[in-house]
Amino acid sequence: MTNISLKIENIAELITVAGPDEKRCGKAQGEIERIMDAIVLVEGEKIVYAGSVKEAPKYELNADATVIDATGKTVTPGLIDSHTHLVHGGSRENELNKKLHGASYLDILRAGGGIMYTLKKTKEMSEDELYNQALKSVDRLMSYGVTTVEAKTGYGIDSIETEFKQLNVADRIDKNHPIDVIHTFMGAHAVPEEYKENPAKFIDIIIEEYLPRFAEDGRVKFCDVFCEDSVFNAEDSKRLLLAAKEHGLIPKIHADEIAEIGGTKVAGEVGAISAEHLIKCTEEGIAHLKSGDVIANLLPGTSFNMGDHIFAPARAMIENGVAVAISTDYNPGSCPTENIQLCMYLACLNMKMTPEEVLVGVTINAAAALGLEKEKGSLMPGKRADIAIFDAPNLDYILYHFGINHTDKVIKDGKLVYEAV
Amino acid sequence: MTNISLKIENIAELITVAGPDEKRCGKAQGEIERIMDAIVLVEGEKIVYAGSVKEAPKYELNADATVIDATGKTVTPGLIDSHTHLVHGGSRENELNKKLHGASYLDILRAGGGIMYTLKKTKEMSEDELYNQALKSVDRLMSYGVTTVEAKTGYGIDSIETEFKQLNVADRIDKNHPIDVIHTFMGAHAVPEEYKENPAKFIDIIIEEYLPRFAEDGRVKFCDVFCEDSVFNAEDSKRLLLAAKEHGLIPKIHADEIAEIGGTKVAGEVGAISAEHLIKCTEEGIAHLKSGDVIANLLPGTSFNMGDHIFAPARAMIENGVAVAISTDYNPGSCPTENIQLCMYLACLNMKMTPEEVLVGVTINAAAALGLEKEKGSLMPGKRADIAIFDAPNLDYILYHFGINHTDKVIKDGKLVYEAV
Repeated sequence: MTNISLKIENIAELITVAGPDEKRCGKAQGEIERIMDAIVLVEGEKIVYAGSVKEAPKYELNADATVIDATGKTVTPGLIDSHTHLVHGGSRENELNKKLHGASYLDILRAGGGIMYTLKKTKEMSEDELYNQALKSVDRLMSYGVTTVEAKTGYGIDSIETEFKQLNVADRIDKNHPIDVIHTFMGAHAVPEEYKENPAKFIDIIIEEYLPRFAEDGRVKFCDVFCEDSVFNAEDSKRLLLAAKEHGLIPKIHADEIAEIGGTKVAGEVGAISAEHLIKCTEEGIAHLKSGDVIANLLPGTSFNMGDHIFAPARAMIENGVAVAISTDYNPGSCPTENIQLCMYLACLNMKMTPEEVLVGVTINAAAALGLEKEKGSLMPGKRADIAIFDAPNLDYILYHFGINHTDKVIKDGKLVYEAV
Repeated sequence: MTNISLKIENIAELITVAGPDEKRCGKAQGEIERIMDAIVLVEGEKIVYAGSVKEAPKYELNADATVIDATGKTVTPGLIDSHTHLVHGGSRENELNKKLHGASYLDILRAGGGIMYTLKKTKEMSEDELYNQALKSVDRLMSYGVTTVEAKTGYGIDSIETEFKQLNVADRIDKNHPIDVIHTFMGAHAVPEEYKENPAKFIDIIIEEYLPRFAEDGRVKFCDVFCEDSVFNAEDSKRLLLAAKEHGLIPKIHADEIAEIGGTKVAGEVGAISAEHLIKCTEEGIAHLKSGDVIANLLPGTSFNMGDHIFAPARAMIENGVAVAISTDYNPGSCPTENIQLCMYLACLNMKMTPEEVLVGVTINAAAALGLEKEKGSLMPGKRADIAIFDAPNLDYILYHFGINHTDKVIKDGKLVYEAV
């Protein structure tokens, strides 16, 4: 007889999200189960059972057990947002008018606006100010069903203190907030003004000065780089990621966002766990991802907000066996939104992913993109009890009724941490 | 000395939205004021003053006056959603997969799905069931800052009882909920199966049987018709709207949504107060709108959700002096969202409207599309105290930080009716 501390009953539709071997999956079909009339049982911080009422094991409720009635509701693993620039200073609504008059992301960047403004604000603001701003965002992310979020540094770049300030803020949120924060070092997020003519030199500095300190610090798990036209080329990106690996950091790479300059090839060569954006990814690029077992981390909110209606070729990726994750890319420039449910809808509407593929993309594949697939991203027994409950009769409804927030409750490590009013 | 029952102070940015003559405006510039360090004073249900602190009149707070601190916040007139199909039965998430496989709106309609499914569910459901479903939606609309909503019948069509059932539900909401509901009769929303070969015959029936009863009932203000390929042609639409006028109803028309078949010409000829959708509106169509003083009621959420990235030519309309309103088109098929803030963002992103033009589109121009510009849609003294307070430092920020809900508080007729937690 199992003792149960939390029970979710009368579930209209339960999505368990997992193949038998819990490996990350490219094609979602067959790797996801949609179960009606279901129940979830939790003991402490772990899932005991998630499935149909009929096949549930015998159990006994603890005296102080929480029982949640999920009549008419859909239950999924807690959502995982595996690509954000969570900690940053200020906001950039003043770019709206520039965009209305046709300025592109690179136009604004080249003119010293865009990320340069955020770098300035992030440097100026105190750790407490940044913490309060980021806290509002994680509250919002959690309200949309997110239980784990990746957060990158990269608004300090040439100021190692600012890079550490961002990491400290993300770490404080991880410690003080129910949401789990996973840290990525992304010092190579933009080229500082003084290295404009010689980005390779700045990569040298990151390799020599930043990597040893961040590796020694021990909190950062991943190293990411913005491999892009007018930012860092493929060769420098590769050098950086290989050096990061030697320091024990796992490589990620922003690739093919605006132009295809070889980022997916680098991803395969260095054994990156994921490649990000991939809007301009070619057939050859998809082959690199496939052969390198690199997860394609797609960010449809960014494509959408860029306004040119060009999205990553998700269908071709899935059909070629590449695992696809979906994330918000929450950041103050190209994608200022914490609404991951809207990003899921965009993946469906604009990248023609099925609701099942999208859900896999924000759960088990997103967990895999963070190296967490053994403990998170599905509701298999023994995994962490991170659970989202949506006020929707089924998964399709969450995507169909777009733009709003469907979250009813969020459970983190077996505890109720968010409830809609 | 004026007595004040509600005061909003320390406003970061106040948008008063009105030209000196409070006429609806095509070009927003010059008809909108963005005032920093502002205050709003309300007595009972009416605005007494909205403007800078410095120019405020002398006033005295009532003993039980409400004082709201709007530090860091943006205050606007309550938003007006001037085009919705609020009351309907069921939901259509089952169409997601059809759309993923390339089916168009008309494909689904012609196959008996789409609106036909909603007609069936609306007929089947009781008035109470429809009321409870619609109540959830108006709560949501209000949470996004909406204080007045238009609601159309049109899911009864060949069942006059169902048409009245929809009206009764909308009327109950108007009476029981803080939000104001304005009623539109839209029996000519689809062609019933038995009139497929002869839509004109169905228009005859509406003219002879429906219009007299709805006119006599007295609750409906407008009559709308779906003038579209495979629905009602221009000639029949015109006949209907002229007959509606004789019954004292003000004409509206769904025009140029999927195909241009002469709807704007009809709008001008019958003196329609507004034409809706206008996605395929031509230069000639814009001239008809202009010469007929017809408001272009644009619904970017629908264009967006159709997924083909074709939006109404808002810029050309504005530049030619046509007044543009923005609405959600909330309905269970082509636009299932109550997030009017997302629709405002889409108007900016995809139709290149400025933040000021968008705000005018959901306030004074939307009021004018409902014939309410004398009492709503701006914060001029004497107007109803319908006010939205956003947790955003300025108007641009509401559009820039997209997809989420910025509403902090909503005031209806001088009373606090919604507050974010």
